[in-house]
Amino acid sequence: MSTFGSLFRVTTYGESHCASVGAIIDGCPPGLELSAADVQVQLSRRRPGQSNLTTPRDEKDLVHIQSGIEHGVTLGTPIGLLVKNEDQRPKDYSETDLYPRPSHADYTYLTKYGIKASSGGGRSSARETIGRVAAGAIAERYLKQVYGIEIVAFVSSVGKIHLPAHVAPPSVAPNGDQDSDEAEDAVTPEFRRLLTTITREEVDKHPTRCPHLETAERMTQRIIRAKEANDSIGGTVTCVIRNVPAGLGEPVFDKFEAKLAHAMLSIPATKAFEVGSGFKGTEVPGSKHNDPFVLKDGKLGTSTNWSGGIQGGITNGEDIYFRIGFKSPATISQPQHTAQYDGTPGTLAARGRHDPCVVPRAVPIVEAMAAIVVMDQLLIQNARKTAASLLPPITTLPPTMVMPSKEKEASE
Amino acid sequence: MSTFGSLFRVTTYGESHCASVGAIIDGCPPGLELSAADVQVQLSRRRPGQSNLTTPRDEKDLVHIQSGIEHGVTLGTPIGLLVKNEDQRPKDYSETDLYPRPSHADYTYLTKYGIKASSGGGRSSARETIGRVAAGAIAERYLKQVYGIEIVAFVSSVGKIHLPAHVAPPSVAPNGDQDSDEAEDAVTPEFRRLLTTITREEVDKHPTRCPHLETAERMTQRIIRAKEANDSIGGTVTCVIRNVPAGLGEPVFDKFEAKLAHAMLSIPATKAFEVGSGFKGTEVPGSKHNDPFVLKDGKLGTSTNWSGGIQGGITNGEDIYFRIGFKSPATISQPQHTAQYDGTPGTLAARGRHDPCVVPRAVPIVEAMAAIVVMDQLLIQNARKTAASLLPPITTLPPTMVMPSKEKEASE
Amino acid sequence: MSTFGSLFRVTTYGESHCASVGAIIDGCPPGLELSAADVQVQLSRRRPGQSNLTTPRDEKDLVHIQSGIEHGVTLGTPIGLLVKNEDQRPKDYSETDLYPRPSHADYTYLTKYGIKASSGGGRSSARETIGRVAAGAIAERYLKQVYGIEIVAFVSSVGKIHLPAHVAPPSVAPNGDQDSDEAEDAVTPEFRRLLTTITREEVDKHPTRCPHLETAERMTQRIIRAKEANDSIGGTVTCVIRNVPAGLGEPVFDKFEAKLAHAMLSIPATKAFEVGSGFKGTEVPGSKHNDPFVLKDGKLGTSTNWSGGIQGGITNGEDIYFRIGFKSPATISQPQHTAQYDGTPGTLAARGRHDPCVVPRAVPIVEAMAAIVVMDQLLIQNARKTAASLLPPITTLPPTMVMPSKEKEASE
Amino acid sequence: MSTFGSLFRVTTYGESHCASVGAIIDGCPPGLELSAADVQVQLSRRRPGQSNLTTPRDEKDLVHIQSGIEHGVTLGTPIGLLVKNEDQRPKDYSETDLYPRPSHADYTYLTKYGIKASSGGGRSSARETIGRVAAGAIAERYLKQVYGIEIVAFVSSVGKIHLPAHVAPPSVAPNGDQDSDEAEDAVTPEFRRLLTTITREEVDKHPTRCPHLETAERMTQRIIRAKEANDSIGGTVTCVIRNVPAGLGEPVFDKFEAKLAHAMLSIPATKAFEVGSGFKGTEVPGSKHNDPFVLKDGKLGTSTNWSGGIQGGITNGEDIYFRIGFKSPATISQPQHTAQYDGTPGTLAARGRHDPCVVPRAVPIVEAMAAIVVMDQLLIQNARKTAASLLPPITTLPPTMVMPSKEKEASE
Repeated sequence: MSTFGSLFRVTTYGESHCASVGAIIDGCPPGLELSAADVQVQLSRRRPGQSNLTTPRDEKDLVHIQSGIEHGVTLGTPIGLLVKNEDQRPKDYSETDLYPRPSHADYTYLTKYGIKASSGGGRSSARETIGRVAAGAIAERYLKQVYGIEIVAFVSSVGKIHLPAHVAPPSVAPNGDQDSDEAEDAVTPEFRRLLTTITREEVDKHPTRCPHLETAERMTQRIIRAKEANDSIGGTVTCVIRNVPAGLGEPVFDKFEAKLAHAMLSIPATKAFEVGSGFKGTEVPGSKHNDPFVLKDGKLGTSTNWSGGIQGGITNGEDIYFRIGFKSPATISQPQHTAQYDGTPGTLAARGRHDPCVVPRAVPIVEAMAAIVVMDQLLIQNARKTAASLLPPITTLPPTMVMPSKEKEASE
Repeated sequence: MSTFGSLFRVTTYGESHCASVGAIIDGCPPGLELSAADVQVQLSRRRPGQSNLTTPRDEKDLVHIQSGIEHGVTLGTPIGLLVKNEDQRPKDYSETDLYPRPSHADYTYLTKYGIKASSGGGRSSARETIGRVAAGAIAERYLKQVYGIEIVAFVSSVGKIHLPAHVAPPSVAPNGDQDSDEAEDAVTPEFRRLLTTITREEVDKHPTRCPHLETAERMTQRIIRAKEANDSIGGTVTCVIRNVPAGLGEPVFDKFEAKLAHAMLSIPATKAFEVGSGFKGTEVPGSKHNDPFVLKDGKLGTSTNWSGGIQGGITNGEDIYFRIGFKSPATISQPQHTAQYDGTPGTLAARGRHDPCVVPRAVPIVEAMAAIVVMDQLLIQNARKTAASLLPPITTLPPTMVMPSKEKEASE
Repeated sequence: MSTFGSLFRVTTYGESHCASVGAIIDGCPPGLELSAADVQVQLSRRRPGQSNLTTPRDEKDLVHIQSGIEHGVTLGTPIGLLVKNEDQRPKDYSETDLYPRPSHADYTYLTKYGIKASSGGGRSSARETIGRVAAGAIAERYLKQVYGIEIVAFVSSVGKIHLPAHVAPPSVAPNGDQDSDEAEDAVTPEFRRLLTTITREEVDKHPTRCPHLETAERMTQRIIRAKEANDSIGGTVTCVIRNVPAGLGEPVFDKFEAKLAHAMLSIPATKAFEVGSGFKGTEVPGSKHNDPFVLKDGKLGTSTNWSGGIQGGITNGEDIYFRIGFKSPATISQPQHTAQYDGTPGTLAARGRHDPCVVPRAVPIVEAMAAIVVMDQLLIQNARKTAASLLPPITTLPPTMVMPSKEKEASE
Repeated sequence: MSTFGSLFRVTTYGESHCASVGAIIDGCPPGLELSAADVQVQLSRRRPGQSNLTTPRDEKDLVHIQSGIEHGVTLGTPIGLLVKNEDQRPKDYSETDLYPRPSHADYTYLTKYGIKASSGGGRSSARETIGRVAAGAIAERYLKQVYGIEIVAFVSSVGKIHLPAHVAPPSVAPNGDQDSDEAEDAVTPEFRRLLTTITREEVDKHPTRCPHLETAERMTQRIIRAKEANDSIGGTVTCVIRNVPAGLGEPVFDKFEAKLAHAMLSIPATKAFEVGSGFKGTEVPGSKHNDPFVLKDGKLGTSTNWSGGIQGGITNGEDIYFRIGFKSPATISQPQHTAQYDGTPGTLAARGRHDPCVVPRAVPIVEAMAAIVVMDQLLIQNARKTAASLLPPITTLPPTMVMPSKEKEASE
């Protein structure tokens, strides 16, 4: 269904050629200062036409807030918002419509519903993500103000062009000696430093949204090459969430990483997700992979962070980081040999403008879904923690079951 | 929370040292022949003590069905079931309890709840997965009988020991010429053949549950090496779901792959998930990555399957396959330098028996979660499809919006 | 939260003075012919200014459909819609704002959220029901077309003016001989006839929406009397749902009547709900209250219908009928002795225009919520029934567990 | 489905003749002292065989807690529990099985599932309520300890035998002068006093659980008369919840009274629900029905309480009270003229032992469902309130939107 989240909840509507796309965001804490401009910032980072790397279609994507805010302050009631579609006409019929576009949703939507929007991707259109980005911007504003939570995503690869291995090691080690015990560093010090310090300003310095400028330039060339070849190319986005309080995530089915994975794989064109050391971590022995505890600023932390800030499905206060793989866009401007709906083989003629690579524009969408997950889990944990805090302390429990007193002080 | 699924729904309870672990499975179709033995098969594949590669603790894990079945047939009402814990005593206090175990859930559970089970991993114990495996076995029985759906998972890597690249290419290409346009084959013909034909019998031929015997032997050595070094090692599990009808998956937040990712990342020790071409697919240009349509057995199918059986979040009838990364178990039998709850640095002494590598036992858990996702999505799509089928056909729609008549016949 | 339903789901937004009120309706079956006019009909029955019995404020309440429909046919995707608020200015501050209005939501909203909309009832405004009425109109269109389901609500009492006892007995018997065994007829033949035949056209013949014209006239006088006294008066609405298939309703927590009660008590100003024989039925011995089975049109039905079409929480195919009590509106145009927010006693001066009695306008809201409940339960039962129908029949069950063969034919 | 609640959630399983009935209670705050005995108290008040007014079948209904508690303290993890069924044999086939029992769930279950439990009511058996009562006992323990919340239900009528009108006025006024403006007192001072002071000890003084002893005696006679006539009789249960904090209840669909109604109408045999002044309140003009605010113990309260402690769907801190109607049990020991499943008319012979009147045993079930609703809503409001409390106060809002400063002090 079109709803995500339990206590902080976003519901979206809209296809690419209807009157508008929009969302209802329910569960925003009351008393938060919030304006349309706060939401617009991320919508503008998402919209097409930002550079020559994205689709030339320039849409304004201005958000219209309908409810839930008065005098610039949230009421705690649902925030309705919408962005008008510039071009609302259902598309004309054409020869190409005999063909389900390969690796698009045409065929599956038609199979699922028995009917499909006359044009574009219908609900699978990237315009659907507008509601998510708006919801994420609202969540983020709260998280930033109250917890200082920072969420920064950036492009870590385009095609085969990855951040240098010492900066951000790729998911799986090069094919070295398989029998060697020597573990590759899934998390290099430089990568951890990058995660700790990266800002959106730095990310936005380059249109690719890759923070390593030399790599960014190579990515640009790769994207332009795809564009000129009437082709497309995929990539990965890495995201870090800093300053998340320990204790978020619901055992056992709604572990923090499970909700994150759900959220990220719901973004169009995603094919892969890894958190912390990810696939590469599977190759590292436990003795090296385990994150030892240390005292940091008077609180228990870990000296390494292979776990990616989550242990047993629950956040531990360290940086949460994860990577998402986006496939190459299915829309390409070259003829494709495929079949019509009725099975007749043929060639689907080239189609119009499109993004040769979606990862730069995916950055704010990833940030938005991350913010929604954090906000929802935070509210759920609030409920429990407040309830527990009102109970009298129990003094008869064995010491294995409660926080040892010294740590208690340490953790507060 | 401890509930997963909307129309087919499993709720679990139980820690490692309480009276029993169990589950309530709600939404099973009525009229399905089902016995405890059907459930036991998968529980026995999951239980410890199956070989010298797993923990020596031998538990019987006999399932006791409490409700929902009479005369060997499901009533459609909730199926309650439980497996008794052999050792129910809360653990004694010991020196080691001063330490949160590195990369375990001790610290995060304590932070979350302010209290934790006196021993073992509490809810993060692998015993919690018993309820999932039971629920999955029930779902599977229905899916097999009615749709011929087959779900087979197998071990595709242990540490750095992967299936040979021509059999199952690893997630990311070797670091070749990054600027080359030459795409690696994320999905080799041999891999696709493996996915199409692999059976549980073949998987179970070797205790590692890797179907490539030569690789399986090398994995065994790797696991034994970890064991002898009082260490642990991770790995990956690949799973294929065959014969899933087209049309499953709910746009936009509950895309089929999003639910799969959620389900898989809720399994203990998982760190990564990829579906279809996965991370490697991000490096392949769209012109190669797109799956062309072809007529197969009178129905529209695709000649390649980089998509992994899912397009636009909806199944397309092709094989669904995905890979999950499991980290090295956090429990190791060697001393670890870490800190106590109160921050005092020290050495956590070695602990007792454990699995040096979890992936062989993870196989039935992965299959179970996959079955639960398919079953739930199938029921949801049933609801819609039945509702739509009762409406009169609409003849006035433009041809772009409906299945062209020839294909209609073709797809039926 | 602002979402109702699981497979057919409505989410609403909007206060009385924001830009618009609206809803997202998710889960509508694809392929249903639907236009804005279909929705407008019920919105217009709900809007104020229909007669001198309602608030003189005349709003057009024109619905703008944003998505989910193309060429007049539903796509199966979310239907976004909105109705603009004519007067969007947050209200000016006035003397009266020192007072929480008695029996309004001012005080409780402020306590809940710590902030409240500057004016009107915020989310507790009757304008919030616009989204419900729209969703109900959509559900109804499907239910009517496919099942011939008819939902008709009417006013059964205003203050003490009830439909005559032989037409529709009030909820509880007059205080007769308490020890007598003589049971009052909770369901008279004339009442049952009324339920079976009443149409919306008949209901709308009189502005009170009471189908018994003589009583309607007395109700009119009662409402005018309240209006002239600057006072208000409550009433009851009775609703019947005809032609609902047997088998809807989810044991055990989501019994059909439980969902109905939930839906009805979520309508502003409701205080009471009864289904079938209701409170009066509690006084009738089982031997009389039980509904004997009889063969009707070749199907099993019941000769009486004290059950109100629901047995064991599941519909049995008979007419479903229920009654809802609406309190007298809290807004009255006379001074009230009460206290300010700070506890200072004082007199709250009279306020402006309002409905002296809400029940006539509540009629379409009741119908809408009923339609949403039926639609949602129908989809859920579709899922199960379709799944069960694909299983082979089981021949080894004892005859007590399956439909006896003769009835089987009878029920099909 | 068999799950109720969102953050405090109970899931139940079990039919009357399976191995056990049980429940999983998820979301209980961690750190609560809780033993099986705490749960047993309410189970024992629910079980049959307590007096000659109930079914002679004497079952022990001993609860076995499986998980979620160690050393007598809740862990915050799911609490699994079960009660064994004494008689687990599926019933033998008999002549009477040709008949669906009138007003039972036999026919509707069979229609819904296509199969039904071989005997008894299956899931519609009263034994299903065991899980609810256990969950309620756990919720109550928390609510009592932290908030001093008291939940007391009692029998307010059996058949036509009601509490005297001056003690507890029946739902609807006697048929007096319909045109008179004179309002009956829906809430007499004596009734309000009763609600304020009634305890479970007083309720349990008489086996009918009616606290007015003279009426209780007449009720006893009525029940015995029904029993001797091989008949049954219904009744009503009134319940009060005291000391609930203001601010609970979720606009707009999950209003506090809507969730209460849902919960209560999910109890077997219920037909009606009213909160506060209920149906009778519909006859009282607004000028009388409105509850004026007054300062009470330094907090804003109301001098009357027609609202029943809920305004705009949100609790206001006053006593919450409501009434539920239970129909006469469908199982009676006299022959009934009805039809067989195949439509053949005939006489269903008398059946065995049963409760001639369920209301005395319904009392703890009503209390349990009330506790679950309060607990769930409390946790949800905790989440919001804690989130809002962490935001800085906003000083620029117009005074109409925030709590006036004097009241702020008053309300704290």
